[in-house]
Amino acid sequence: MTPSHLLSRADLDFLLHDWLAVSDLCARPRYADHSRETIDAVVDLSAELAEKYFAPHNRKSDLHEPRLVGQDVELIPEIGEALERFAAADLVGAAMDAEVGGMQLPYTAYLACMAWFYAANVSTAAYPLLTTGNANLLLAHGSDEQIERYVRPMIEGRFTGTMCLSEPQAGSNLADITTRAEPQPDGTYRLFGQKMWISGGEHPMAENIVHLVLAKVPGSPAGTRGISLFIVPKFLVDDAGSLGERNDVVVTGLNHKMGFRGTVNTAPTLGQGLHTPGGRPGAVGYLVGQENTGLKKMFTMMNEARLGVGLGATALGYTGYLKSLDYARTRPQGRPVGADPSSPQVMLTGHADVRRMLLAQKAYVEGALALGLYCARLVDDDKTGSPEESAVATMLLDVLTPIAKSWPSQWCLKANELAVQVLGGAGYTIDYDVEQHYRDNRLNPIHEGTHGIQGRDLLGRKVLAGGGAGLAALTDRITATCDRASGTGGELAELASLLRPRVTRLIEVTTALAAVGATDPEAFLADATEYLEAAGHVVIAWIWLEQVLALGSRVADDADAFAAGKLRAARYFLRRELPLVDAKFDLLAAGDRITLDMRDEWF
Amino acid sequence: MTPSHLLSRADLDFLLHDWLAVSDLCARPRYADHSRETIDAVVDLSAELAEKYFAPHNRKSDLHEPRLVGQDVELIPEIGEALERFAAADLVGAAMDAEVGGMQLPYTAYLACMAWFYAANVSTAAYPLLTTGNANLLLAHGSDEQIERYVRPMIEGRFTGTMCLSEPQAGSNLADITTRAEPQPDGTYRLFGQKMWISGGEHPMAENIVHLVLAKVPGSPAGTRGISLFIVPKFLVDDAGSLGERNDVVVTGLNHKMGFRGTVNTAPTLGQGLHTPGGRPGAVGYLVGQENTGLKKMFTMMNEARLGVGLGATALGYTGYLKSLDYARTRPQGRPVGADPSSPQVMLTGHADVRRMLLAQKAYVEGALALGLYCARLVDDDKTGSPEESAVATMLLDVLTPIAKSWPSQWCLKANELAVQVLGGAGYTIDYDVEQHYRDNRLNPIHEGTHGIQGRDLLGRKVLAGGGAGLAALTDRITATCDRASGTGGELAELASLLRPRVTRLIEVTTALAAVGATDPEAFLADATEYLEAAGHVVIAWIWLEQVLALGSRVADDADAFAAGKLRAARYFLRRELPLVDAKFDLLAAGDRITLDMRDEWF
Repeated sequence: MTPSHLLSRADLDFLLHDWLAVSDLCARPRYADHSRETIDAVVDLSAELAEKYFAPHNRKSDLHEPRLVGQDVELIPEIGEALERFAAADLVGAAMDAEVGGMQLPYTAYLACMAWFYAANVSTAAYPLLTTGNANLLLAHGSDEQIERYVRPMIEGRFTGTMCLSEPQAGSNLADITTRAEPQPDGTYRLFGQKMWISGGEHPMAENIVHLVLAKVPGSPAGTRGISLFIVPKFLVDDAGSLGERNDVVVTGLNHKMGFRGTVNTAPTLGQGLHTPGGRPGAVGYLVGQENTGLKKMFTMMNEARLGVGLGATALGYTGYLKSLDYARTRPQGRPVGADPSSPQVMLTGHADVRRMLLAQKAYVEGALALGLYCARLVDDDKTGSPEESAVATMLLDVLTPIAKSWPSQWCLKANELAVQVLGGAGYTIDYDVEQHYRDNRLNPIHEGTHGIQGRDLLGRKVLAGGGAGLAALTDRITATCDRASGTGGELAELASLLRPRVTRLIEVTTALAAVGATDPEAFLADATEYLEAAGHVVIAWIWLEQVLALGSRVADDADAFAAGKLRAARYFLRRELPLVDAKFDLLAAGDRITLDMRDEWF
Repeated sequence: MTPSHLLSRADLDFLLHDWLAVSDLCARPRYADHSRETIDAVVDLSAELAEKYFAPHNRKSDLHEPRLVGQDVELIPEIGEALERFAAADLVGAAMDAEVGGMQLPYTAYLACMAWFYAANVSTAAYPLLTTGNANLLLAHGSDEQIERYVRPMIEGRFTGTMCLSEPQAGSNLADITTRAEPQPDGTYRLFGQKMWISGGEHPMAENIVHLVLAKVPGSPAGTRGISLFIVPKFLVDDAGSLGERNDVVVTGLNHKMGFRGTVNTAPTLGQGLHTPGGRPGAVGYLVGQENTGLKKMFTMMNEARLGVGLGATALGYTGYLKSLDYARTRPQGRPVGADPSSPQVMLTGHADVRRMLLAQKAYVEGALALGLYCARLVDDDKTGSPEESAVATMLLDVLTPIAKSWPSQWCLKANELAVQVLGGAGYTIDYDVEQHYRDNRLNPIHEGTHGIQGRDLLGRKVLAGGGAGLAALTDRITATCDRASGTGGELAELASLLRPRVTRLIEVTTALAAVGATDPEAFLADATEYLEAAGHVVIAWIWLEQVLALGSRVADDADAFAAGKLRAARYFLRRELPLVDAKFDLLAAGDRITLDMRDEWF
């Protein structure tokens, strides 16, 4: 079999088993039905389905974007077939409880499966990502009856789900949403308003679409404390689970995007009067939990979606890397510096500058994948570890989520930029996949919380939580990794010596910024993005050190190509990328006020 | 009049007059017919034509890319109309000699004009860019009869030009081209071969297309020393200038690109037998100059094209900056950190992180534009200065050209990435221009010599030319600027103190690399790209210091919005961007061998 150009199965094996010891999880009651064999089987099945049903229509989706015809959306049929195959393999509920029809797979294994689908076709994979997130939110916060009515059909692949947060006038700031939910005598609500940027908001591939909608009940507190969460199905569902009347949630426009074009992106209107369920105006909505607790609930789903976005960015970077590597290995072009011009051409990999671009990609995408799976392992520990393990995992996951979302969104996009560059002019054409990956990946620093919002989340909320316990949990782990590497000696000790001073600086700079925050919250967060990026590089350097430690004795064996590659990528990242954080830490330490003091009229 | 969102007229005025003193050039005989008034008038006219005839079809060109129908290419008609307007304003020959129909405008003013067209519609502007470059090459190296027959009609807008270098099997390395030119008894040649990546290679917008083709005469030396240059017109031209037979240069395929879609990109075949001029096989070609001197001649055109590419990248970055600034000033979104959630929304510019993204763009695009015009000024000095001025200008231009091509291609692409980010989800849709600018700009690090090739050019050829005279010419100027800034005191002295140590390091690192080059040419150039990027940042920092010096006493006046903005952008660049070079210099100084030693099987 030719190796896949989507992901490296060998790398996944290494991360899942040699490093993260996922099969150890099977000793825990929740995962008792699983073993290394069942986990590997579902990863293999995902790889196969991704290659067979997702990858082949990736370009076709891009060239034939969804069309709005009346109230309906038309899509290429291959998307629907792919989703059927995905659901038929029980993958929607792969990580969910067996009692609701799930496979109860460790979350780490589940994300490894999803990575294949993202790499093959991120636009098509977005539909199950949203559906799973929606279902998980209802499993956490919905009533038994809501779970029976909406979640089961989603797991079975009959319904899909969306999350409806943004509005045209509100964008990133949910405090400003104006969608109105009016309570009805029967305990339901009627919703009126306009939503924006809703992926999967309308399509013909499911019997029903379950929208999770943020709205405000009249009289609620101002700002985010007055937001409630509602289920708004496209078709009303009766007690027997049969579909009834068409609800008044109607897509009134599509957004046409630079990439991610197979994922229909909609502007749905609620309660416009195009339908009148029960003969009355408004979109019928069912409250999830209590009023005014909607945003907190939505965050259950958003955190998961953020890990998903990070992993999607990673998968795009990864497949771009493998495709540009394949091109570079098979494309004759030029000669090494100083060679006789009549000597035969060498492959592109024969040029140091091409190897530089490939090494950079390798360092970014393998580092990002490792971080994503590490976070997934934390989700497993959070859910099934001992109370102590769970508490630490919660804290670490809080700190790492903004990084796991933003770092791959930035650097695996950069990887795609380099993949295009390796192919040169060919990479700029639609004859190769890499230009599409680059366009698709450009969405990731924007959706599910922009890059800037991740920075404010990390610095403003996460690292200082519990009096700095969030940061301490992270830096303690990094220091422990450095200690292990130093103890090993040789090059590992050398790499650890590159990381240690940057961890110290991260702690110092965080402490200094916290002091600023006590008196000047605006100055405190003015450069939160720079902080996010510096912390992200420190975290990825740590993850690289973790990976080379996990190689054990293989690390010194240049005949072991996998291990030799990991060591070079780690070396590349710690020697060439990590030092870039010093200038950022200097800037943060100096308290530069240039962006704060800049006036509008000076631009 | 609302200010343009293409470029800043005030910035151009400042650069052309306050800084580069372009009207001083009018004291030189070549430019004696010009004055500040005539220069300003042609810049204004360019701005007007760009807004009126180039900008309006920029999106349409992107949505309706060129189609190959038989041997012909179909384009949207607006492109042809724009080119007619351009030629009718005498802009093709704006910088050329009056005796061939040119306007004899200073090159600096000419590039300022071109920037408007690039900002408005880079795809359409590529046609005159290629035509002008082609004409200039023939003016420099063609015979009087070739000039009469081909250049005059190009200046008049009746013919367009191309440059045909690449071939499918050769890509960046021209030593491997195989197009064959067989000498004929009448002194002409017959050409046979396949070219690739030829912009403007076929279209219906001109009476004739003049291809400049690199080919090898059988028996010529191997490698680049055996390359000759030929004129291959689409239609043969008789002595009276009338069009005759169709030549056998036929487009057999189009490349479909991620951006730059209005510029048709073709794969032309020569001598395939689809036409048989004079009843004989082969495409008729006319030698330019002597055999085996083609590559050197082509470089006349490539250097100009490289400045043009850099300026095109700059213009795309500049218009993206102005459009994202406009959006940020008019889009209400959120509140400053810590504000009451019931207080009104502020504009996006009210957020420090948005101001950061705008300042970064401003620093990149205004820095790049200044560098581009500075290089244009060197072209003028090279051509019309005293012998001493001319010699210095030649040397500086040699060193600066790879930077003027690559730096904007990298950092104004980054500016477009930030412009998309400022607009958020809206920026990712085709409802706004910024996503197209981002896609268009991604070509610039690839064509006219890839990013990697610019690095090898700078380090391998330019800085060490004349025993390091190239580098010395540059660093002497930078040091002189630092001295002036130090003499001024205050913040300028402070900014100079940030630049000085980096100039010292540039010299040290170059000297160390030259020593490596004496024994190990591959190691010497292995990290030429890192060198290029570090040198580029030093140069742009210098150009920023030059700009603030040119403000004179305005620099301290915060009520002078233009001056205050320049100072902040300079401060931003020198404080936040320049320090990034330290890690690159450290890497270069350490002689890291990681990319050299990486083996194919380790990826």
